[in-house]
Order: sequence, then structure tokens, then C-alpha cells
Amino acid sequence: MYQLIDGKKIAGQIKEQIAGEVKKIKQQGGKIPHLAVILVGKDGASETYVAHKEKACHQVGIHFTLIRFEDNVSQNELLNKINEINNNENIDGMIVQLPLPKQIDEQKVIESIDPEKDVDGFHPVNVGRMVIGIPAYISATPAGIMELIKHYNIDTQGKSCVVIGRSNIVGKPMSILMMQKKALGNATVTVCHSRTKNIKELTLKADIIIAALGQAQFLTADMVKEGAVVIDVGTTRVKSDKTKSGWKLLGDVKFDEVAPKCSYITPVPGGVGPMTIVSLLKNTLLAAQKKIYN
Amino acid sequence: MYQLIDGKKIAGQIKEQIAGEVKKIKQQGGKIPHLAVILVGKDGASETYVAHKEKACHQVGIHFTLIRFEDNVSQNELLNKINEINNNENIDGMIVQLPLPKQIDEQKVIESIDPEKDVDGFHPVNVGRMVIGIPAYISATPAGIMELIKHYNIDTQGKSCVVIGRSNIVGKPMSILMMQKKALGNATVTVCHSRTKNIKELTLKADIIIAALGQAQFLTADMVKEGAVVIDVGTTRVKSDKTKSGWKLLGDVKFDEVAPKCSYITPVPGGVGPMTIVSLLKNTLLAAQKKIYN
Repeated sequence: MYQLIDGKKIAGQIKEQIAGEVKKIKQQGGKIPHLAVILVGKDGASETYVAHKEKACHQVGIHFTLIRFEDNVSQNELLNKINEINNNENIDGMIVQLPLPKQIDEQKVIESIDPEKDVDGFHPVNVGRMVIGIPAYISATPAGIMELIKHYNIDTQGKSCVVIGRSNIVGKPMSILMMQKKALGNATVTVCHSRTKNIKELTLKADIIIAALGQAQFLTADMVKEGAVVIDVGTTRVKSDKTKSGWKLLGDVKFDEVAPKCSYITPVPGGVGPMTIVSLLKNTLLAAQKKIYN
Repeated sequence: MYQLIDGKKIAGQIKEQIAGEVKKIKQQGGKIPHLAVILVGKDGASETYVAHKEKACHQVGIHFTLIRFEDNVSQNELLNKINEINNNENIDGMIVQLPLPKQIDEQKVIESIDPEKDVDGFHPVNVGRMVIGIPAYISATPAGIMELIKHYNIDTQGKSCVVIGRSNIVGKPMSILMMQKKALGNATVTVCHSRTKNIKELTLKADIIIAALGQAQFLTADMVKEGAVVIDVGTTRVKSDKTKSGWKLLGDVKFDEVAPKCSYITPVPGGVGPMTIVSLLKNTLLAAQKKIYN
């Protein structure tokens, strides 16, 4: 019988811890952690993500400021605002909701954020520090997955781990975190991607599979060995007439057939997803406490 | 019959190219590229490495400045000098020869170097940029290996690549470079290390093996499949009564028995080693031309 990795529950517990810490700061007369989010345009998905982040901040008592720009904003205008927030001592963490409109160079925007306020962990300084193994803001999804592995005491030492996908925000950082010479790490990591020829051969030998390729229900039962740990990062939206919203989320794993073979598995939704916002809250708290850079 | 990857020859060719470019800069009245090296103490190996770097700079016409400190130098003194060089427009690239004495925080020193002058590619900004896949100074050994792969037209696309070792300066960057979505890349990469349980099983399936664990003659013929490409990063010094110097270099690969099974293999010495200094020269030229940051 497999153990469901209940991201929703763990996320709830961590939120309570964060709320407790924020409360303590308040009681001691300290400055309340403060997150600023820049949102450009009116993309539906981005609006939803930002609304979730705002709600989560309110739940734990973190101050939240939303800064909106029209989607015809110039790059300079945006960079000026980022610079203003960099210099605003009242704001501890900042994120710019991606994607950005075409006239704006995303990489340039990311690099203009003060690394000490880069709670999304996208700035090259934070990516580099994570790789080197020194304190860094780790991006939300990998940080959330490591948190789940920790909470369920999943043994990674010397285990074979296959990461499917090599994106900058999930696949690559996950592979590095899993191979680090640390208690949560020390796995033998293989990274597969669109050019990999024999994915099934590789996943069949894996003790831990992290599916982050963004292809709905890619991982099937015949690709997984008995007792594997499966982490599903996929979130493909498909239409559905069975939900109130008219759509549902599909993971990269065919849950119903894969789960019976697993020792641990994350569901979609309710697995990795809820952890990502918690990672952002945690990074904002760390920023306010100056625990990464000091 | 295997093809020997002649690092010494390729390094010579690239040095000639660099010398040509420096000459052109000179003829056009431009500023000659200038590398500054900080050397602390009198460690024998460090003295040798720095002497080699100095000689290579002279060979290609790059200006070389050596700044020496006694091994009891304070961290502040060192940081002040780095800051001075950061602000010296005449100096394009700077390296601090490692290791440093105990009283000095190496990571802090590395991070104090202006990333735009960090021709060793050790600063988190350059590590992060390399991972993200944007222009970056790539550290000498991985850059040299990629150069060899390019020069011998070794196909990496969709190949399985096993990297043995997960160091910050070789194993981790090599794994990232080999998996990038680029012409030189797109390999399916597995990183093995001291905690890996079944290294032989993994290396036996690899099309490309990069041995960078620093254990002399670790990789033996029974671990390598027919036709594999083997890159040997090892440089263990052992005593020898057959050389004038009294010691010889051993790689991480048992060359004599492994080579016959290979399609391509690097010797030690004369394989990866000569490429590392060339990478440093190339990075210094790139720095002078402001080709990475602009």
C-alpha cells in the first residue's frame, strides 16, 4: 500500500509555523515581513497565481503589496520600479510574475532584482549559490519538493534518482539539490529530457522519479519499479465538465495506475503545488530575518 | 583503433588563435588584455600553476601581473586589493590562486571579485549564468573539456553521459553543460559520486564517461563499454624514479587497458590538463573584449 504525500497538509502545517514566527516578530516589536509582487498585464493564469500568493501572505500575516503595470509598460519603467523596491528598506522580498510581454527582456528584469530580495530564487547569484551549496533562495518548486522529502523522511542517500525535465526552475535545480553532499541529497541523479532515447529503461531502475516535463500523464505504470517514490510536478490544465471551474489539473504521472506500485507518491492537485506558495512565504520570512545574506 | 584526444595539440592551436587576436588588438591600437593573479604564500603546487599561467600569458601576448601576499595576510588586506583591482580599468581579468590560508574565507574572497573580471568562473553569478544558459565565464576544466569535444566533433546529442565526481569546479558544471539544450550538449547525464552504489553498472552503459573523482586509475576496462568516449580529469601526483622531476601524474583512468575499448580517450598528461590554461587565456580575452557582460 502506497503512502500519499499530502502536500496540502504539510503546506498547512508549515504555514502555521510561519504564522507563528511572524506573530512572534510582531510581539517583539519587529518589522513585519513584506513581499512585493509586480504583475504586468492581465493574463488569467498570472492573476490567479498572484491572488493565491496574496491570500497566503494574508493567512500568515506577511505584508503584501501588489504593483500593477499595463501590458504596454516599457522595460525602463519596470526596471525603475524594481530599483525603487530594491532600495525600499520596508520591503524584504520581491517577485516579478512571469511571463512578461514581448517588449521586455525577462532575463534582464530578473537580474535587476537585488539578490537579497530575490525570493523566487531566479537571479543567477541565487542559482549559483544553490549549486555551490551555500545559503541561497531556492526557487519555489524545488524547495517545496525538498521539504516534502524531508517531512516524509524519504531516504535519498545513495538512491538512484531520475529527474525528467531540465528546466531552469525545476529540472536543473532538482538534479543539483538531490546530488549535493548533504543529508537530504547524496542521490545518484540522472536527468532525462526530450532528447533522451531510453527514458523507460532509466525510470524502471529509479528509486526516486521526479516528473517535471510538463506532459500530461507521461509516466505510466510500466515505467516504474515496485516501491519507487514518485514526485509529480506536472500541472497541465485540461477542460472538464466535471468541475465547477470547467477545467481540471493533470499531472505528468498517470496516478491511478502508477500509485499502486509506489512506496510514496504525490497527487495532482494537492501534492507539489501547495508547497510552492509555502516556499515563497518561507523565503520571504528568511529575507526579513536576513538569514540567507548577512 | 581508438583516437587519442590530443589536448596538447589543440591547446597549442587555440593559443595561436588567441595570440593572433591579441596581435590584432595591438595593431589596431586597442588595449592589450591584462590578467592579474593574486598568490598568497609559497605553496609549491600553487607556485607551479601560477608560473604556467604566467608563461602562457607571455606566449600569447596577454599582460600578466602577479600580486604576492605573505601567508599571514589578513582577509581585509586581501579584500582591499581585490577591490582595487575590481576598480582598475587596466585589468580585465583576475584570479586568486586557491587554496588560501585558514584565516581567510575562500568563498568570501571569490564573491568579492567583480563577476565581470572573474575569469576563473567561480563567482556564484557566473555559476548561475552558466546553469541558466546565458553568457558566463565557465571554469577552466569544464570549458576545456567542451572545447575538446567540439574540436573532435564528438556527438553528444541524446548520448548517455556519466560524470564521476560532483565537485563545484568540475563535476557539477560538466553535468550541466552536457545536459544543456545546445548543439554541444543534449546528453542524458548521470552524476556518480562517493555515495553511488553501482558505478560500474552505470559506466558500462555510458557513451561518454567523464572521470573527475580524483582517485588514480579508478576507471578500469571492465567498467567501460566498447566504443565509449573517455575524458580523464584526474591528476594525482605519485612518486616516480623514472622521471627527472621525481614524480609523475596519474589520471583517474587506467589508460593502457581502457584505451583499446574506446572510440576517443584523453591521455594524462596531455589531455584535459593543457586545455585548462587555455580556457583561462580565452576567458581573459573575452573579458578584455567585454563579450560576456556588455
